[in-house]
Amino acid sequence: MSEDVRVEVGLGERAYDILIGPGLVARAGAEIGRRLPGIRAAIVTDENVAQRHLEMLKTGLDRGGIASSTIVLPAGEKTKSFAALQEVVDGVLAARLERGDAVIAFGGGVIGDLAGFAAGIVRRGMNFVQMPTSLLAQVDSSVGGKTGINSARGKNLIGVFHQPKLVLADTAVLDTLPIREFRAGYAEVAKYGLIDRPDFFAWLEANWQEVFAGGPARIEAIAQSCRAKADVVARDEFETGDRALLNLGHTFGHALEAAVAYDGARLVHGEGVAIGMALAHRFSARMNLASPDDAARVEAHLKAVGLPWRMADVPGGLPDADALLSFIAQDKKVSRGALTFILTRGIGQSFIARDVPVSEVLAFLKENHPG
Amino acid sequence: MSEDVRVEVGLGERAYDILIGPGLVARAGAEIGRRLPGIRAAIVTDENVAQRHLEMLKTGLDRGGIASSTIVLPAGEKTKSFAALQEVVDGVLAARLERGDAVIAFGGGVIGDLAGFAAGIVRRGMNFVQMPTSLLAQVDSSVGGKTGINSARGKNLIGVFHQPKLVLADTAVLDTLPIREFRAGYAEVAKYGLIDRPDFFAWLEANWQEVFAGGPARIEAIAQSCRAKADVVARDEFETGDRALLNLGHTFGHALEAAVAYDGARLVHGEGVAIGMALAHRFSARMNLASPDDAARVEAHLKAVGLPWRMADVPGGLPDADALLSFIAQDKKVSRGALTFILTRGIGQSFIARDVPVSEVLAFLKENHPG
Ligand SMILES: NC(=O)c1ccc[n+]([C@@H]2O[C@H](COP(=O)([O-])OP(=O)(O)OC[C@H]3O[C@@H](n4cnc5c(N)ncnc54)[C@H](O)[C@@H]3O)[C@@H](O)[C@H]2O)c1
Ligand SMILES: NC(=O)c1ccc[n+]([C@@H]2O[C@H](COP(=O)([O-])OP(=O)(O)OC[C@H]3O[C@@H](n4cnc5c(N)ncnc54)[C@H](O)[C@@H]3O)[C@@H](O)[C@H]2O)c1
Ligand SMILES: [Zn+2]
Ligand SMILES: [Zn+2]
Repeated sequence: MSEDVRVEVGLGERAYDILIGPGLVARAGAEIGRRLPGIRAAIVTDENVAQRHLEMLKTGLDRGGIASSTIVLPAGEKTKSFAALQEVVDGVLAARLERGDAVIAFGGGVIGDLAGFAAGIVRRGMNFVQMPTSLLAQVDSSVGGKTGINSARGKNLIGVFHQPKLVLADTAVLDTLPIREFRAGYAEVAKYGLIDRPDFFAWLEANWQEVFAGGPARIEAIAQSCRAKADVVARDEFETGDRALLNLGHTFGHALEAAVAYDGARLVHGEGVAIGMALAHRFSARMNLASPDDAARVEAHLKAVGLPWRMADVPGGLPDADALLSFIAQDKKVSRGALTFILTRGIGQSFIARDVPVSEVLAFLKENHPG
Repeated sequence: MSEDVRVEVGLGERAYDILIGPGLVARAGAEIGRRLPGIRAAIVTDENVAQRHLEMLKTGLDRGGIASSTIVLPAGEKTKSFAALQEVVDGVLAARLERGDAVIAFGGGVIGDLAGFAAGIVRRGMNFVQMPTSLLAQVDSSVGGKTGINSARGKNLIGVFHQPKLVLADTAVLDTLPIREFRAGYAEVAKYGLIDRPDFFAWLEANWQEVFAGGPARIEAIAQSCRAKADVVARDEFETGDRALLNLGHTFGHALEAAVAYDGARLVHGEGVAIGMALAHRFSARMNLASPDDAARVEAHLKAVGLPWRMADVPGGLPDADALLSFIAQDKKVSRGALTFILTRGIGQSFIARDVPVSEVLAFLKENHPG
């Protein structure tokens, strides 16, 4: 009956489906039960999502005969902590779930990363289902099996690769997502165009209003994004090569997030990525790798959709260039004064650049620093 | 120059060597450096091992040009906790190690399980080297990639599979091991005979004094044990089948450990396993699967080497049979009143028995309960 879009993540014996479409929360029990018959489940979610959508999910699971318990956590990046991980692990064990039972992540990327990590370590790996409810999670974090939490020393430094058995992206739940979060997720959609799909980027420039408005264009954008991510993941599951391209915008972005101490009131992940992508293009132009026109085109599009695109857009100011560089160096391997970055030769022509001189990065940060 | 015994764990692209012999701590830098050139390392160890052997390891690594930092934890099972895991993870990140650098576990099974888990989750998986210093760790826990910590709800419920790149078992460091711990480790050696190597068990009956005394018989027993474990692991890396045989004696053993709240003063792991193996044989006889003579032979051998072999041997008394059963049920999947156990048809003829009636186990516990 349903007309979900299906995208397959081709990982051999770990292959799984991503279903995209409205109403999947209400049909979750049927879709999960078909693939994992006879299981019980622990739902991991956050307070915002629980308030709006948990009852529907409970009903949806019930209908499929899946008994479930629920672990509700505070919303926000600070929940990707050791303390929250322990809480989820304890909750799953308290529910007496076995390896074959499932942890269901029902929320944004924070919940997906945390719950996936917990599923990866309880009994050395339980079944795991992603039900992403933010745009960012639907197009990015729920696909590919990277899970984890943050450390005081940097983001996502602790975790495992643990692939879900199924991803259910209910596009209708996005309607309750705050517009700012929707926009932040859109940065990752645009990213796939900028990495290696110039036609998709051009399509977004022409159709972004429809994507924001909802309907078929939104589903199309999410499906294209999932396909793009699934392609990269299938080529390089454990990030030993190509998968690093997905970090376009993330080296600068993570440094900005760290600089505001992961304070979501000032900067959420996708906003950091938006600024980071603009900086990666501008820096590529400065290194004579790409045309300044391409950098300007990226900046213009981010600006058009209402995303921040330059350091000056971070409210409350930033530490100086040296401090920002030290956040970058903390996140990345610095070997003999050089850094690895994702740079670009133009729209949709990004590449992994090793040996980027630290001195050039520092000079660039100084030139572009607002303060 | 060295005459180490080499046992290979045949896991395809995750294959690795176990080297067994005296003096490997002093030669660690050379052996590790040959396989992982150019790395830095974080040594994870406990206070007992650090006091006796850390300086030698530091020297050994230095000689091979491997710079290292050290994380020292309290000795004992309680160190397999979330808090200690976080301490190790933080320490490894503080040392700024990368994915290609190595965590070295230098200690008994507690340190190996904990450090291996940390290595498995820092940056989603770093290189890992096992340097087991207890007999139990040399013959069992350091081989096979199971890592983890305990939960209030049971032992080893949280962890990952993360194979080491190399295992260095220096048989000379066993000389500082308390005799009680040596004996406990010996229980796991005997286990391999009881699982499927009747000739090895007979050899142990004849040669156990030499194994305890040290010298070639000890090295031979350790090598045989590693070969036995490597065989099972190579057949079933992720414990979806056969590997469960390694749990011979562990279902009862874990219940006893839980019943004394993991108080090592009363019962250490190997002692629990010794009693558990004797109970598994006695229970198999009770179920008319094996001859009571075989059970008596197992009991006699454990008794001869000075290991506990019956519930009455646990100092300080035990909770009643119902309580013990609930510890077993907590550890194991109970489906429709049945449990999975490793039972036996005789010495070296163990098998995975599904559907063992809970009622039989309870009756057996009552009959054999000392209180
Ligand atoms: N694992 C990966 O591969 C990967 C990839 C990219 C990002 N990430 C991680 O994802 C995280 C960011 O994800 P995010 O942007 O989804 O953050 P998030 O999970 O914090 O969600 C953003 C906010 O939206 C709320 N929300 C979510 N769905 C909602 C809904 N339907 N209605 C109302 N409110 C809703 C949440 O409660 C939260 O307040 C970061 O931690 C990042 O590191 C992971
Ligand atoms: N991962 C696996 O496959 C696996 C298999 C079996 C057991 N285990 C785990 O192993 C643990 C038990 O291991 P264990 O018996 O080695 O315990 P342990 O690590 O606590 O070591 C026993 C004691 O001996 C001391 N010690 C170790 N080496 C020494 C030396 N050379 N000299 C002096 N003292 C020394 C330790 O400090 C400790 O006090 C349990 O947690 C068990 O769950 C894991
Ligand atoms: Zn991102
Ligand atoms: Zn054991």
